[in-house]
Amino acid sequence: MPESQPADRYAARGVSASKQEVHAATQALEAGLFPGAFCRILPDLLGGSEAHCLVMHSDGAGSKSAAYYLAWREGAPAALWRGLAQDALAMNLDDCACVGALGPFLVTNSIARNAHRIPGTVIAEIIAGYQDCCERLRAWGIACALAGGETADLGDLVRTLVVDATVIARLRREEVIDASRIAPGDVLVGFSSTGQAAWEDRPHSGIGANGLTSARHDLLAEVYRYYGETFAPETDPLLIYAGTHRLADPLPGDPRFTIASALTSPTRLYTPLIAALLAELPRGAVHGLIHCTGGGQDKIRRFGRPGNRYIKDAPFPVPPVFAAIRALSCAPWDEMYRTFNMGWRLEAAVEPAQVETCLRVAARCGIEARVVGRVEGGGPPQREVIIHTPDGPISLR
Amino acid sequence: MPESQPADRYAARGVSASKQEVHAATQALEAGLFPGAFCRILPDLLGGSEAHCLVMHSDGAGSKSAAYYLAWREGAPAALWRGLAQDALAMNLDDCACVGALGPFLVTNSIARNAHRIPGTVIAEIIAGYQDCCERLRAWGIACALAGGETADLGDLVRTLVVDATVIARLRREEVIDASRIAPGDVLVGFSSTGQAAWEDRPHSGIGANGLTSARHDLLAEVYRYYGETFAPETDPLLIYAGTHRLADPLPGDPRFTIASALTSPTRLYTPLIAALLAELPRGAVHGLIHCTGGGQDKIRRFGRPGNRYIKDAPFPVPPVFAAIRALSCAPWDEMYRTFNMGWRLEAAVEPAQVETCLRVAARCGIEARVVGRVEGGGPPQREVIIHTPDGPISLR
Repeated sequence: MPESQPADRYAARGVSASKQEVHAATQALEAGLFPGAFCRILPDLLGGSEAHCLVMHSDGAGSKSAAYYLAWREGAPAALWRGLAQDALAMNLDDCACVGALGPFLVTNSIARNAHRIPGTVIAEIIAGYQDCCERLRAWGIACALAGGETADLGDLVRTLVVDATVIARLRREEVIDASRIAPGDVLVGFSSTGQAAWEDRPHSGIGANGLTSARHDLLAEVYRYYGETFAPETDPLLIYAGTHRLADPLPGDPRFTIASALTSPTRLYTPLIAALLAELPRGAVHGLIHCTGGGQDKIRRFGRPGNRYIKDAPFPVPPVFAAIRALSCAPWDEMYRTFNMGWRLEAAVEPAQVETCLRVAARCGIEARVVGRVEGGGPPQREVIIHTPDGPISLR
Repeated sequence: MPESQPADRYAARGVSASKQEVHAATQALEAGLFPGAFCRILPDLLGGSEAHCLVMHSDGAGSKSAAYYLAWREGAPAALWRGLAQDALAMNLDDCACVGALGPFLVTNSIARNAHRIPGTVIAEIIAGYQDCCERLRAWGIACALAGGETADLGDLVRTLVVDATVIARLRREEVIDASRIAPGDVLVGFSSTGQAAWEDRPHSGIGANGLTSARHDLLAEVYRYYGETFAPETDPLLIYAGTHRLADPLPGDPRFTIASALTSPTRLYTPLIAALLAELPRGAVHGLIHCTGGGQDKIRRFGRPGNRYIKDAPFPVPPVFAAIRALSCAPWDEMYRTFNMGWRLEAAVEPAQVETCLRVAARCGIEARVVGRVEGGGPPQREVIIHTPDGPISLR
């Protein structure tokens, strides 16, 4: 079973992409008001309004902070760290926006650092990054306020630093996008994770905040083992910085990026695009919005009607950063499409009549969009994803 | 300056008790609706009610997880880990309750683990711990719902695990307890962190979730250096597990506890007591509630009128767990009272006429209370705390 080796390789690095055991631990939690929605949706327990509901969400930048750390230790200015706040925010806001929550958002940040390694200047840049993002979002009509946060000195627990955020928003129940409505006949529109959106100041490599453990160790050369604080010592040394690149190397296939800038490209904020889409499309026309984070292009399989087959036969070309990772990891395509967004970190399942509006709104936002596929029936109850990779179609189920 | 050495010792372990540099980084954030309140209080940005406000708070169990880890690796059952959820919850809920927020509380948990060290069974126990706490609080009239959470496999960042929580609650603005009202003439009532509250199933050592890095390294013997995953390798080895105790040793002065059970005694939840106090006292009679966490008995110095002198001349006797730490660390009293709660993790500044009600309500809750001191004027603008330690009075300013 050669296909299983890279998954083992991922697990050997202490990362379980599917996290079954964690899902088992949380399955007892209530499903919320809309069990098939992209995020758990709660009654308005704060305001008590029957017409409203709440979405409260915690997530973080994950191991991407280790990529920032390496780049910073190798000479990048401290301001680079601002991007890490955007990573943590995007992982939360874009999840919330996928159920139709468009703010006002309240945000808390939670930073755990090893003060031996991470000085206050870095913390100041990350907090400034949160403020930058909130200001930029406000300019695009998304209200986002920093409610507070905590920076804890936890060198006994943390090798470098962990950056997490929690957001909450309230929305009208009638405005909830309930991904359980994704049905045969829908068109899948993908929104590029590369390029430069209207609210961004530079091009993005396409990387998000998932798969960064693999990306870092598969791309970077063993010289970076010098930074012992950037990996778990329990991991098989053969899997640590097992690539060939230096941080300053140009990214193969796209010399606008270095390996460092490709790895630390801050996760795109899709929330302004989602707000623009929902403002133009008739209510109910968006059957589902999927934030392709953990699980990548397989994420949609958790949502929609039983038996749905998600046929993605016109994916975006593989962005250079993911091609570079694959060139060194030799990971099979199913592993790549399950770990990374592979070109679009947001997809919408819409009625065919709405495709043109989706493409037009995306173009106005500076984001490339395309029909990546469609929804058919006849699949297994737990649904199926078929992706046409550069080497032909694969089935995820 | 022998007094400064233990502070250096603390800093050498990578923990800055005062975190000036972090405070500098966050000072640009807005002060909120009640700048002198114990927590930042925001307008009701979710519901838009002028009569209401929000408190949203993130904090965690900090390095206490390393104490649980050691106890578990040395044979404690996995169910021990449930207490860690209470630690994270208490650090959040009791802060919120100190401004008068009594729920409903919405909670998210955020766990970062090294999957090489922390199996799914541990995560399941921690999540069960959150559910246990929410149920117990509900029985005491505190509504607390788990809105969701995230468990991230971050072995490249985390040695064992980090457990954080975020809570949000809404309250009427007229019900906010604004600690800026603490004024000369007020009486300081302390509420014990030891003993067994009516909602607890066993006695507490008094330890909270602050100072645990010191507590662990000062109490435990060097044999625990075997667990290299429980400390920062950058720390001076002389400061690592520099004590004399085994985990199974009886706690000196209180053989009901072992060193392990004293260190992992879950942080008391004071929220039901605060709810009972606020239900019985006339509105406005509580000028301030102080959760004595980071900063310990010096925390109150950040609050109240300029020039206040907080004279704590009748503190609780030093609980055995803190006496044991001091016996080995030889830390001066000012360091002890700044790092640990030293016997009461909650204090109220009330009008003298309300003292009797405070003591009566606390007794009903099974929590010992006493007048620990009073508020006088004539201090420096930035306020002063005077504590009568076993070796005489000390001044913190």
